[in-house]
Amino acid sequence: MKKISVASAPATVANVNAGFDILGFSLPGISDQVRAWVIAEPVVRIKEIVGVDIPSIPAKNTASVALQEMIKGEKLTHGFEIVIEKGIPLASGLGGSAASAVAAVVAGNQLLKKKLSLEKLFFYALKGEEVASGGIHGDNIAPALYGGITACLKTSDGAFQIVPIRCPKKIFCSIFHPAFPLETKKARGILKTEISLKDYIQQSMHLTGLLMGFNLGDYELIYHHAKDIIITPQRKSLLPFYDLFYPALIKAQSLAFGISGAGPSIFILSKNLPAAKKMSALLTSLSHKHKVSGQVFTGQVGAGKPEVTILKVRE
Amino acid sequence: MKKISVASAPATVANVNAGFDILGFSLPGISDQVRAWVIAEPVVRIKEIVGVDIPSIPAKNTASVALQEMIKGEKLTHGFEIVIEKGIPLASGLGGSAASAVAAVVAGNQLLKKKLSLEKLFFYALKGEEVASGGIHGDNIAPALYGGITACLKTSDGAFQIVPIRCPKKIFCSIFHPAFPLETKKARGILKTEISLKDYIQQSMHLTGLLMGFNLGDYELIYHHAKDIIITPQRKSLLPFYDLFYPALIKAQSLAFGISGAGPSIFILSKNLPAAKKMSALLTSLSHKHKVSGQVFTGQVGAGKPEVTILKVRE
Repeated sequence: MKKISVASAPATVANVNAGFDILGFSLPGISDQVRAWVIAEPVVRIKEIVGVDIPSIPAKNTASVALQEMIKGEKLTHGFEIVIEKGIPLASGLGGSAASAVAAVVAGNQLLKKKLSLEKLFFYALKGEEVASGGIHGDNIAPALYGGITACLKTSDGAFQIVPIRCPKKIFCSIFHPAFPLETKKARGILKTEISLKDYIQQSMHLTGLLMGFNLGDYELIYHHAKDIIITPQRKSLLPFYDLFYPALIKAQSLAFGISGAGPSIFILSKNLPAAKKMSALLTSLSHKHKVSGQVFTGQVGAGKPEVTILKVRE
Repeated sequence: MKKISVASAPATVANVNAGFDILGFSLPGISDQVRAWVIAEPVVRIKEIVGVDIPSIPAKNTASVALQEMIKGEKLTHGFEIVIEKGIPLASGLGGSAASAVAAVVAGNQLLKKKLSLEKLFFYALKGEEVASGGIHGDNIAPALYGGITACLKTSDGAFQIVPIRCPKKIFCSIFHPAFPLETKKARGILKTEISLKDYIQQSMHLTGLLMGFNLGDYELIYHHAKDIIITPQRKSLLPFYDLFYPALIKAQSLAFGISGAGPSIFILSKNLPAAKKMSALLTSLSHKHKVSGQVFTGQVGAGKPEVTILKVRE
């Protein structure tokens, strides 16, 4: 009998407004899946990548790099062969590379005799993510692995800390994913290296209001402070549909909206599912009106989480 | 019978680490007091200022300006005569001007037929504070009026919002107030108008960690994130004792430390009262060792709050 571990990890929205490089949340219904089984040699082999046309070079894939780091870090004497099924669009700003890395470590962990802590899985997934984003950013990995809304922090010594953000009220999300890719590296490259003290203070107020809005389940605080006055104004030029869509979105008075991750997807937050469905319908109609083809998703903020099962098959 | 309203308002620590212009907390045991009674004319007269030698020109005093704004805003047909008793050292970074303004509006409110909301009192006290700090900053007014730990936010339309920060664990504070004044305007004037994106991100992580540390009562988060990498490095040159004291303070491993308000006072946070007393003793010995005369206070973070009573005296 061969044990196959099948794990999925959800899409995530990172860079949530003023929480640049910090705040993220998971989404239900969109995920990447990794199937893994043990092989004798302590290496990772990608058997297949389903759903997209990406190179299956183990050193360049977030899932395989994450598992290679696990093999190295845990001094495993065996390796893994994996099949990656991409459900999250590539370079969409929905945390696809993080989800593959998380699904891989969750799948791999299930095949170990001694299960690893979430902290260790985070660390290995992060090493995988590094390949894709060109930097160490855990704000997609954290919600993909832990579920919910998370703050991913670094101490001054560079250690990561994941802080789950309580949110007593349900919040719903509509996503528009335009059908063109945007590389995180490119979206990062255009950012100015200096910001004004004035903007820093106002953005810190927004960050505080957004965090406290989630913590207290206070829609009013979220509405006023789910803003980003520093990064979005610089990045929106990379999203040619942004200025076409936004007047209609502002008029529709959602709870909040912003660029998901480094873009090009955008997200809209709503107080309840009917409102979110209305916003999703608006996104669909805007996409038709302005001839920007893309996909629309709707789901509860933070409701996505990793899932894993073991299949036993005859060899 | 003449009704005299006697109100006190506590000292406060604002600019708490990464919460520049946002986070503040009140302190017990140090306060300003304002005694007020009604006079026929709709003006404010300062009868006496006790405890310090400051000009009693109503237009330049935070207490009288706050009450004048109340008279104007509420269209009062009467005025107030007041006695201000300063218990908080002047230009100490302990929110003395805010405390006088808060004590004044709390005292005045008690003499009104229709009591005003805390939001309105905040607004009038803030107008008083503006005279002293040369800018609209509510981060001392908010904790002085509401007590506890508060976030004072501004929306993008410039409206203020006070958010009380829950903190399920008690935290204690030691204050060293060196015996020299430092004007807020001066401490503000030296700040650079630009900061790096890198510092903004790290400081935002610290702000998130500090807020979540308070919210969850998580000492570990507070320890790692009660830091300020933007403002303190620029201001510490105004505090000649800073670099003399800090090696010893770091060695003593408190929960956190920083400049209180715009300085020159510094604060230290501890997990319990014995630890705070130890830190206060250390501050006293450092002040002797380095010949920096000053005062030391110890108290529970957020335990200060306004108090008001009405005296009835024969005219």
